[in-house]
Amino acid sequence: MNQQIKVELSVTKKLSDYAVNFPDDQITEQAIHGAKRCLIDWIGVALGGSEQEGPDILLETANYVGGNDDASIIGRKEKIDILHGALINGFLAHVLDYDDTHLDSFVHPSAPVWPAIAAICEKEDLNGLEALRAFVIGFEVETRIGRVLFRHHDQRGWHMSGMAGGFGAAAAVGRLLKLDAKQMQTAFGIAATYASGLRSMFGTMSKSLHPGKAAMSGLYGALLAKRGFTSAMNVLEADRGYFAVNAAEKEIQGVIENLGEDFEIFYNSVKPYSSGVVTHPIIDAAIALKNEYNIPIDEIKRIVAYVNHMVPDVTGKHTPSTGLEGKFSVYHCLAAGYIDGQCGPEQFSDGRVQSSDIIKLRGKINIEVNPNFHESEAKVVITTNGGRQIEHYVPQASGTADNPLSDYQLEQKYSSMAYNVIGREQTKSLAEKIWRLDESILFSDLMAQTQPK
Amino acid sequence: MNQQIKVELSVTKKLSDYAVNFPDDQITEQAIHGAKRCLIDWIGVALGGSEQEGPDILLETANYVGGNDDASIIGRKEKIDILHGALINGFLAHVLDYDDTHLDSFVHPSAPVWPAIAAICEKEDLNGLEALRAFVIGFEVETRIGRVLFRHHDQRGWHMSGMAGGFGAAAAVGRLLKLDAKQMQTAFGIAATYASGLRSMFGTMSKSLHPGKAAMSGLYGALLAKRGFTSAMNVLEADRGYFAVNAAEKEIQGVIENLGEDFEIFYNSVKPYSSGVVTHPIIDAAIALKNEYNIPIDEIKRIVAYVNHMVPDVTGKHTPSTGLEGKFSVYHCLAAGYIDGQCGPEQFSDGRVQSSDIIKLRGKINIEVNPNFHESEAKVVITTNGGRQIEHYVPQASGTADNPLSDYQLEQKYSSMAYNVIGREQTKSLAEKIWRLDESILFSDLMAQTQPK
Repeated sequence: MNQQIKVELSVTKKLSDYAVNFPDDQITEQAIHGAKRCLIDWIGVALGGSEQEGPDILLETANYVGGNDDASIIGRKEKIDILHGALINGFLAHVLDYDDTHLDSFVHPSAPVWPAIAAICEKEDLNGLEALRAFVIGFEVETRIGRVLFRHHDQRGWHMSGMAGGFGAAAAVGRLLKLDAKQMQTAFGIAATYASGLRSMFGTMSKSLHPGKAAMSGLYGALLAKRGFTSAMNVLEADRGYFAVNAAEKEIQGVIENLGEDFEIFYNSVKPYSSGVVTHPIIDAAIALKNEYNIPIDEIKRIVAYVNHMVPDVTGKHTPSTGLEGKFSVYHCLAAGYIDGQCGPEQFSDGRVQSSDIIKLRGKINIEVNPNFHESEAKVVITTNGGRQIEHYVPQASGTADNPLSDYQLEQKYSSMAYNVIGREQTKSLAEKIWRLDESILFSDLMAQTQPK
Repeated sequence: MNQQIKVELSVTKKLSDYAVNFPDDQITEQAIHGAKRCLIDWIGVALGGSEQEGPDILLETANYVGGNDDASIIGRKEKIDILHGALINGFLAHVLDYDDTHLDSFVHPSAPVWPAIAAICEKEDLNGLEALRAFVIGFEVETRIGRVLFRHHDQRGWHMSGMAGGFGAAAAVGRLLKLDAKQMQTAFGIAATYASGLRSMFGTMSKSLHPGKAAMSGLYGALLAKRGFTSAMNVLEADRGYFAVNAAEKEIQGVIENLGEDFEIFYNSVKPYSSGVVTHPIIDAAIALKNEYNIPIDEIKRIVAYVNHMVPDVTGKHTPSTGLEGKFSVYHCLAAGYIDGQCGPEQFSDGRVQSSDIIKLRGKINIEVNPNFHESEAKVVITTNGGRQIEHYVPQASGTADNPLSDYQLEQKYSSMAYNVIGREQTKSLAEKIWRLDESILFSDLMAQTQPK
């Protein structure tokens, strides 16, 4: 009955040792810059999401429960206790489905980790450089665990950010709180036993709870471990531990393979479109076809998109009726990308999803899986009423590590969402603060600027 | 890749409808009495556990985070916010491994549900009768879900109270907050996507976090649902929902079979010993052999216990070194039961687990699985140095539904733990209040008496 996992080494111990003891001076400038890119993207998408209904409900509930005002809620005037702060800022990070993705693990790395870091930094008056370093480590931990789980978890239906994100939050906070390696093992144990999140929540507010509660539980695990709480010390490799229960997998050495030799943060993807990441090469193709040919939709007979197998699996909703459902409809994404030439938050309003031009074009779209396509690859073929065929092939979606957004494009994405919430001036000064966060800036000063005055 | 679950009816919807609409007047006197029995047992074991190190750490952390003082922590002078209150009182319920068990599901039913009820009743000034009714419903919901999961979850290594308890807490709080059936479906969705808890945590403080966080997440789910939060409405039967992800099971109609015709609370077990419930028939046998024969341990050559297959699986620790480990060592339980004639909290101190007489006897014990034995059945055979064999067979462990503790025995168990914490007088008056809780008593009055003055 027990799933025996044979490993020579203690994976949990080695990962814990890395999280707390990897030397600061080996976290390169380039990695720190990657952390800043994640930070500006997180704050941007959280600002963009701050006017949704979900955070209203979470804040109202947090106030009903009642707590200290230690943590700033991004895009709001309110502050709240650090656990709710981590939860709500994690929710905000994900609610537009516009946050970053580590494609090798399908973890959204910023959403569970930055909110936990922000909460503890505000509470403990920590500085920006420490926070950036902690983020690099947290990113490394969650994506390494996520990668092994994702490859081997039988696609049972877990949402990766909820399953792996808590480890990243625990690692980052644990490093900031200067846990020793044993305390870090404990914090990982707590994060593991809190890990959850079902994919059946996609298309509902509960999906965005997943990274929020990962942030909260990782933070909580580190707080408990710091104070002498106990848990299994070998939760990753343990019989009835994290992998034994959640995966069929016995080979988990990949979690610590080449640890410290490179940084996973270099392989992050930032979303240019606010929909499921697997739709992005298709949207790239749609926008390219519009820009190049601009065939009126009445002249289009049929569109066929050739895609990776995950596309219909994750975003196969044929007839979305809300903006949220539109994010999980490759049909809507392709239609909106073609008609509007973009796929930002406005393309995922209820109204846009229900509009007649979109619905008309959506009905002409067919999806075909190409088993040889990776998840950033797609081809879209348009056939006109007259029988003409035009096509566009995308070898690597924009925003991925091999085709990244520039810092300027990234700041533009952030600014487009920040303006409405905190105004132009504060948008600019906050961005400046993020880009030079390693220069003796308190993290709490930065968080203060994420709130409208 | 999707695990398709075929069901004719919406299980989630039917269960939700039951939770909020089952008529008060069909919750029988006998069921209400069962709820009182659970309540006195919960408060007793929580008082007994209140002086452990774990709750110190949880309270210190809760105070560091900071919250309102709405919820009483049992056995402490402190009050805290309702989410931490549910968490900590749920932890306290379980920390001695002395709380009740529903054997058909292996859910510990009181630990996740009573703390959630207590928190919302204190916050909203609700009365005892409402609370008792809500508990009966919460018990029903968590054990029905737990039963189906437990039978078919491949024994992957989940801790049932963490996996199913949140549904019970959500149902109870949802009923108290007068959610409608759709809001209840939402609350179940949230509870489901928070469900977790690994068995590798057994023997550590994190084990008792499981019912605590189930209490917290069920309460939280109900609070969010009341305010319009959204989640999957069909989480139990959904593709990538609770059963699809956590079990291989496609037949989940058992969750709602004969719903409303009987109450699972009638099939609860209360622990006479503070160790894993599967050790209880063995301890019964050990105490009976001691009382009848009292053979000195130096004259014992060998002891063989014939047991259900779960005994070595859950409590197979050969050489425990702490009190906590002793609870998961059938060897220690049998030795302590034989030598001391009882197995209360004092038999699970570090000192008692390490004492030489126990260790000596422990070394003579062998465990053999009898595949025909159910989990409340055992036989213990002692062979003396002289070759004499004596044995005792237990068809049904004490404390189980077929061999229950009397109300008097139950109150004795409670009192034995309450005296040291709240004194004799308060112990007595609190018990009286519990037994007549359905007579217009505010639940907050009762909780006030669980705290030392």
